[in-house]
Amino acid sequence: MNDIIRERLARLRAWMARHRLDYCLFPTADFHNSEYVADFFKAREYFCGFTGSNGTLVVSNDWAGMWTDGRYFIQAEKEMAGTGVTLFRMADEGVPTINEYLKAHMRPGETLSFDGRVLSARLGLGLEEDLLPNGIRITYDTDPAEGAWPDRPALPCHDLFLVEDELAGASAADKLAQVREKMKEAGADRHLLSGLDDICWLLNIRGGDVACSPVALCHAWITDDRVILFIQEEEVTPEAGACLDGIGVERMPYGAITGFLDTCDLHGHTVLYDRERMSYALMKKLQTQAEKTGGQWVEEQDPTKLLKAVKNETELTHIRQVYLRDSAVLTRFLWWVKTNAGKIPMDEYSAALKLDAMRAELPGFIELSFPTISAYGANAAMMHYEATEADHADIRAEGMYLVDSGGTYRGGTTDVTRTLVLGPVSEEVKRHFTAVTAGMLRLANGRFLQGCTGRNLDILARGPVWDLDIDYKCGTGHGIGYMLNVHEGPQSIRWRRIKDETEAELLPGMIVSDEPGVYIEGSHGIRTENILEVVSGSKNDDGQFLGFRMLTWVPIDLDGIDPQLLEPRERKWLNDYHAEVCKRISPFIEEEEIREWLKEATRAI
Amino acid sequence: MNDIIRERLARLRAWMARHRLDYCLFPTADFHNSEYVADFFKAREYFCGFTGSNGTLVVSNDWAGMWTDGRYFIQAEKEMAGTGVTLFRMADEGVPTINEYLKAHMRPGETLSFDGRVLSARLGLGLEEDLLPNGIRITYDTDPAEGAWPDRPALPCHDLFLVEDELAGASAADKLAQVREKMKEAGADRHLLSGLDDICWLLNIRGGDVACSPVALCHAWITDDRVILFIQEEEVTPEAGACLDGIGVERMPYGAITGFLDTCDLHGHTVLYDRERMSYALMKKLQTQAEKTGGQWVEEQDPTKLLKAVKNETELTHIRQVYLRDSAVLTRFLWWVKTNAGKIPMDEYSAALKLDAMRAELPGFIELSFPTISAYGANAAMMHYEATEADHADIRAEGMYLVDSGGTYRGGTTDVTRTLVLGPVSEEVKRHFTAVTAGMLRLANGRFLQGCTGRNLDILARGPVWDLDIDYKCGTGHGIGYMLNVHEGPQSIRWRRIKDETEAELLPGMIVSDEPGVYIEGSHGIRTENILEVVSGSKNDDGQFLGFRMLTWVPIDLDGIDPQLLEPRERKWLNDYHAEVCKRISPFIEEEEIREWLKEATRAI
Repeated sequence: MNDIIRERLARLRAWMARHRLDYCLFPTADFHNSEYVADFFKAREYFCGFTGSNGTLVVSNDWAGMWTDGRYFIQAEKEMAGTGVTLFRMADEGVPTINEYLKAHMRPGETLSFDGRVLSARLGLGLEEDLLPNGIRITYDTDPAEGAWPDRPALPCHDLFLVEDELAGASAADKLAQVREKMKEAGADRHLLSGLDDICWLLNIRGGDVACSPVALCHAWITDDRVILFIQEEEVTPEAGACLDGIGVERMPYGAITGFLDTCDLHGHTVLYDRERMSYALMKKLQTQAEKTGGQWVEEQDPTKLLKAVKNETELTHIRQVYLRDSAVLTRFLWWVKTNAGKIPMDEYSAALKLDAMRAELPGFIELSFPTISAYGANAAMMHYEATEADHADIRAEGMYLVDSGGTYRGGTTDVTRTLVLGPVSEEVKRHFTAVTAGMLRLANGRFLQGCTGRNLDILARGPVWDLDIDYKCGTGHGIGYMLNVHEGPQSIRWRRIKDETEAELLPGMIVSDEPGVYIEGSHGIRTENILEVVSGSKNDDGQFLGFRMLTWVPIDLDGIDPQLLEPRERKWLNDYHAEVCKRISPFIEEEEIREWLKEATRAI
Repeated sequence: MNDIIRERLARLRAWMARHRLDYCLFPTADFHNSEYVADFFKAREYFCGFTGSNGTLVVSNDWAGMWTDGRYFIQAEKEMAGTGVTLFRMADEGVPTINEYLKAHMRPGETLSFDGRVLSARLGLGLEEDLLPNGIRITYDTDPAEGAWPDRPALPCHDLFLVEDELAGASAADKLAQVREKMKEAGADRHLLSGLDDICWLLNIRGGDVACSPVALCHAWITDDRVILFIQEEEVTPEAGACLDGIGVERMPYGAITGFLDTCDLHGHTVLYDRERMSYALMKKLQTQAEKTGGQWVEEQDPTKLLKAVKNETELTHIRQVYLRDSAVLTRFLWWVKTNAGKIPMDEYSAALKLDAMRAELPGFIELSFPTISAYGANAAMMHYEATEADHADIRAEGMYLVDSGGTYRGGTTDVTRTLVLGPVSEEVKRHFTAVTAGMLRLANGRFLQGCTGRNLDILARGPVWDLDIDYKCGTGHGIGYMLNVHEGPQSIRWRRIKDETEAELLPGMIVSDEPGVYIEGSHGIRTENILEVVSGSKNDDGQFLGFRMLTWVPIDLDGIDPQLLEPRERKWLNDYHAEVCKRISPFIEEEEIREWLKEATRAI
């Protein structure tokens, strides 16, 4: 593999030399700043071998570096070994950011090139700010991958499908009215929307253009009385077409967005867009056109972002039901692994396939919400490890096995992690396992005033791990879409401040993951992840109190717990949770044997 | 009192009418945005009667409103009863900010007037931004108080005194070198410093111009090779003068700062200043002059702010010693109240006088660090209640008594709160008392990664209170100066985001208060406050872990604790703390009787 990467980089450098480009930058995004992207957009992976969901590659004529976050340090090191690409561990002490690196290494007159369509406006503006004053040139209107990726996959193109109002809880017309209200509040009468999940949520449509994310490639232009959807016409089934026509959505070809913006008369109009979800190229085009025709723009968070994050009652009802079924499937799978490990042949890859197949049988199953992480032993220390047919470990009756998985169903998107103890484990491992469990429970049982953001709450989950002088290098939790992306903002549970990022208050109806962990490189990895719904508590003169309700109902392996290390309240939380797991999940399990096991697995300690 | 206030307001309104001013605004600050201010600056108190340390009064020709924060809601209501001034409870749901109120009520062409010298640059700019677009005029060059406050006190003028290097741990020359280094980093070669504690810290001087804060009124102008101190010459004793001369500090009269800025040639120079600590008037003057003479400016936090917040080893050594002695005094006082309440006549005021006198006998005592809060029964629900000779409650052998007090000594500034149980209390009160104690201990025993700010940690202290559906409407903790202000930034422990405010990371050597509370209006108030020193824990690949070390060693009244409501680890923390209190404080107590009581008061539960 490493030779292949070196060959690809050589081809890229030859292309760069022909075009007199000194540095090329490849982020991980499509034209919509999506987290998961179609193969067409995987240039970063193509040129460095790193397959994780977050990373940026920078290539010069004699050097290449790749920046990724703590979830992927171990994986990236492994995947890029021998490629000559240097790993930059983001947020580690002394590690420069991409901008800092470029600022320090690029000389005046040199040119940085990237495809402006796959870089977010915010990042592009950041590069402008840091590099232009040093006399560095930026070109963003050609795609460096284009010239050096001969066998590049085509743009994906799959059929749209509809989310009926009974499933959505609100019609597209209602949602449009809400968005137009927010546009008005922002002083805008035009809105360019590029986030795929935002557009799909808004119009109650779904697609199949991105793996693990039921969305279609599209842009939307919204005015007081018009909606134009830029989409590949081949994707629009007769049914979807009729529905879009019915709510007055006009259609133009996907690629026509640039021409549309080039000729758009913005005189007297104000366009709302979100730097975070808009590509640098589209933003530049929009601003140029506004300046040319006498229009204005206002940058704000896409109104859809918060609207879709706060789930409505219909969505919540479906989600709760979907999580029950999904939890039952995982419980059956855990029983199977726990009972059979060491007795029958079993490996990370085959186990994942088995779990994926079990999920696929559930009613309303659409696809996995992300590639199943099935990690045995030391592999579990890689937060986003993916076992492959070619490269995986056997699962044996010793150590631990971590499985992080989820599905998207008609009625919700799930995400859940459990770590199984398959043989005797050390006191140290139990200390880690118990701390992770305690952290998950402390956050899930947290009570707080409305106004809190995830930064206020993170320490509830992370505290027990920090008490052991250990950190996990990622957030504690993320929002989750409804039949949409498994990672969805604006809310999150994390402790670090991210520059320029707005912190979103937690609001009733939001759902977030709660997934503390311990990851010891080369040894073991433990993560326990439940999904929580934010619910209202009492309201008094001090304000509106909030708390969480569990959505996930899967046993936590008691073989990993040292009860002596739990506080009484934590033990009570665990026992109460397990009692509920048994009560709620048993009805979904037909086999007496598994029901008996579940009873034992959820016993009070 | 209310008639007096009404009369004063009438006089003010007559003056406003003569000068055609529609609204006047009185913040709580001196020319240096100090928290505690000399009597000369107490215009807000003069015109509305509210004596708290934070509040802004707005007066129109037929209306007046006063904004203050949650610590003062009860007190302000009481003090302003009958004055006709409306109380605005800041941060309460639906309560407009001052700017929102003015924006909604002032009409185009109307004029808002305030003394630009007593409003921070940030607040002044905020008013500009919100009001100027609406056609509202702002005048800031006359002092509205001047015309309507005939018997106004004079500017204070007290002798300077010196802090020897052995006490400061760093010479003024060393500190100046550090500040100049930071100026360079900020790209500045001029620095206007207006924060009194910052200047006193920098030059190792102290003064007596502000009650409870050993500082002198002054400004400082710092260049690469000059320091000009603007100060009342009468304050400069021969000794102080010789010392300042010795380190090359030039002197100009206090009031000369405006003239100096008016004639200063800034061509080719860049001035650093801090919006938070600079008056609106001086900032305007500086910017005008820079524009006129071709200079630049850069707004950043005063470099002194962070430098003085991180205490050096010498300071910490003195602080630890000072806190021991101060804790011993408070312990003796608590014994006296606890033993004598109900037996001898005792009231809030006389008790405070007694405690203040006991502190005054300690070696190196300079002054109280703030007016002692001595509050019995329901009065303790007012967070910053101050009993007076004329208005105070008796202390009886029932309910609870709260005392929050501190001193400034040569060697440190202290702050400590304890709540005593003086008779039988309800289960509810015990629940509150125990939660407050648990919260204080949870924060004090917190372990966290460097990079955390108080917003990450606040929930440790507040969580047990929130678990009861109760909030305390203030931060959990503040930084503390060294022989300086009892409230000192930049660090704090609080959960709410404050717009535009930088969140400061906690760093080893910082000290912060840890003071959760429960305040039930009309019933009771409980607060337990220890001061903590931030200390380094282990450092590994995950980062630098930090924790706290206690500085305060005073028993927490076990009569308020229900041991059943404490988790085992909390009980252990309490017992360990009490064992240390007994060990550390006993040597400072001569009387056998009190030592015996202390032993009992710090028994393990």
